[in-house]
Amino acid sequence: MSTQTREIHLAARPHGTPTPDDFRLVETTLPDPGPGQLLVRNRAMSVDPYMRGRMNDSKSYVAPFRLDAPLEGGAVGEVVAAGPDTTVEVGTLVLHNLGWREHALVAADAVQPLREVPGASPSHYLGVLGMPGLTAYAGLFRVGALQAGETVFVSGAAGAVGSLVGQFARLGGAGRVVGSAGSAEKVAFLTDELHFDAAFDYHDGPVRDRLREAAPDGIDVYFDNVGGEQLEAAIGALRLRGRGALCGAISAYNATEPPPGPRNLGLMVSNRLRLEGFLVGDHRDLQGEFAERVGGWFAAGDLVVRETVREGLDSAVGAFLGLLAGENTGKMVVTF
Amino acid sequence: MSTQTREIHLAARPHGTPTPDDFRLVETTLPDPGPGQLLVRNRAMSVDPYMRGRMNDSKSYVAPFRLDAPLEGGAVGEVVAAGPDTTVEVGTLVLHNLGWREHALVAADAVQPLREVPGASPSHYLGVLGMPGLTAYAGLFRVGALQAGETVFVSGAAGAVGSLVGQFARLGGAGRVVGSAGSAEKVAFLTDELHFDAAFDYHDGPVRDRLREAAPDGIDVYFDNVGGEQLEAAIGALRLRGRGALCGAISAYNATEPPPGPRNLGLMVSNRLRLEGFLVGDHRDLQGEFAERVGGWFAAGDLVVRETVREGLDSAVGAFLGLLAGENTGKMVVTF
Repeated sequence: MSTQTREIHLAARPHGTPTPDDFRLVETTLPDPGPGQLLVRNRAMSVDPYMRGRMNDSKSYVAPFRLDAPLEGGAVGEVVAAGPDTTVEVGTLVLHNLGWREHALVAADAVQPLREVPGASPSHYLGVLGMPGLTAYAGLFRVGALQAGETVFVSGAAGAVGSLVGQFARLGGAGRVVGSAGSAEKVAFLTDELHFDAAFDYHDGPVRDRLREAAPDGIDVYFDNVGGEQLEAAIGALRLRGRGALCGAISAYNATEPPPGPRNLGLMVSNRLRLEGFLVGDHRDLQGEFAERVGGWFAAGDLVVRETVREGLDSAVGAFLGLLAGENTGKMVVTF
Repeated sequence: MSTQTREIHLAARPHGTPTPDDFRLVETTLPDPGPGQLLVRNRAMSVDPYMRGRMNDSKSYVAPFRLDAPLEGGAVGEVVAAGPDTTVEVGTLVLHNLGWREHALVAADAVQPLREVPGASPSHYLGVLGMPGLTAYAGLFRVGALQAGETVFVSGAAGAVGSLVGQFARLGGAGRVVGSAGSAEKVAFLTDELHFDAAFDYHDGPVRDRLREAAPDGIDVYFDNVGGEQLEAAIGALRLRGRGALCGAISAYNATEPPPGPRNLGLMVSNRLRLEGFLVGDHRDLQGEFAERVGGWFAAGDLVVRETVREGLDSAVGAFLGLLAGENTGKMVVTF
């Protein structure tokens, strides 16, 4: 009994900002799961900024997406059929990497049964309790080496990772937490709901001046989701022995020419600054500590978890394009 | 019995590249040393790139030089008279910070009697056995965290610090050592005398292409003395988890507008790169290890120590301007 389902293919490699024509919704038929396979009905899928890079045909830390094949990405689904030689029970909720489709035929050893956290919905495992959560955690505490009482600045602060960085910083003992975002509504979200000490809209530039108002005494840790002008402003604001954890540079993902770099790297010598790029995949060893600490904050209600939810596979391309355009507050997810 | 002597004052703050008119040779009279003071006859004084920054009236890690007052900087001299309440004997060779003058009246607790190394001349304590040596050592082994077998690239490789970085790297177990410099003669010095594995003239750009030829498999550690295009090329060449130790940016010291920054910082995320600025003053705790290890290499004849020597205080301004113009190979010093 095969399964009729739908998936999204990459139809063309985007040049600059992607358009709907770069994607194609395809009907397909999946066979029953064979030995060692599971059939999963997806309940939620992730759209993430890093996916933009995989749409280019260029060397990076993950292979490019193939043309005319389904896209991939984090997803949570329910096992609806299990092939021979599998031990995962039908009905189990699993995390896996075959998003962008309504059903997935996936190797049983490529799924991770969820350790359910009270109060968590499937999409939370794609955000606060999943990869974006661990990204925020590792970048802030390990790469950024946050110490009690320090001042943290995070760009893209209303996004999936940024909104967690700010909250983890506060719960982890930071003295002051400031953030930037791309609209007045997001700024209000940061200060009113997430209790950032200060926040500003980067459109109200120069960023350097806005940052100086938000953190008059400078910053100790910068968590960079954006790059460009915000990185330059942060370097200028970092105090002696300040650290920058470079997580992403969404301002450049659609650029067709390399954007200018920060002109103030000379400060790195005089102020003994450290900038370090990182990928969450190198910090899987923190998973246990992360699950315990962040799971605890989540279960205790200490975290405000905002999601921007789109419904159904037909909305997935729009969700991804909207993510790159900054339409989300908190994690952007597609639910089924 | 006072002492007639000469010293060099800062007559004007240079705009861009300094000129001789920014300096003034002044005759002066020093009184006999008072309690706790020593009169030192300088034998060698240092000119260093960092001094350019102190000539600006801007906040930095050391205070600006004062106008119409003698410049300062590393010097080695012989104690010729000792005031009351001092324990340093006349005739002792001491390291102190009142260079740019033929005699210095200096507090006894601000001098460091030299622990003499066999075969060393006074100027060596301003180079390989002094601050530039410790700078190279700390930047390469601590900040750059060089591991055995790795490839090191150093810019400004024929300079005081760079020529030591390359040799320390080789002696410290690097697999391949490459360097850049500003003339064919310097390049020949690097390969023929210092035994770098490869070297190039940065004028024969693009630096990116020359670096790719010199280090076809990429680099693991970059020791930056130059900034600008060389830093961008190095970031592009750094392999997974590569480190950049940022020591200086002589390409920018005379700039009146901030030069453009590297356009490829996105690689820091995908390749998990680390860039860290440092100042030798933060690494004084390595002094003992440095003295033992580098002193050993020096005494054993394992190091090629080239100096560019100018004679007499009248040549000091020319030595400094020549340093900024890249006229030196190895340490630029002025002897008396």
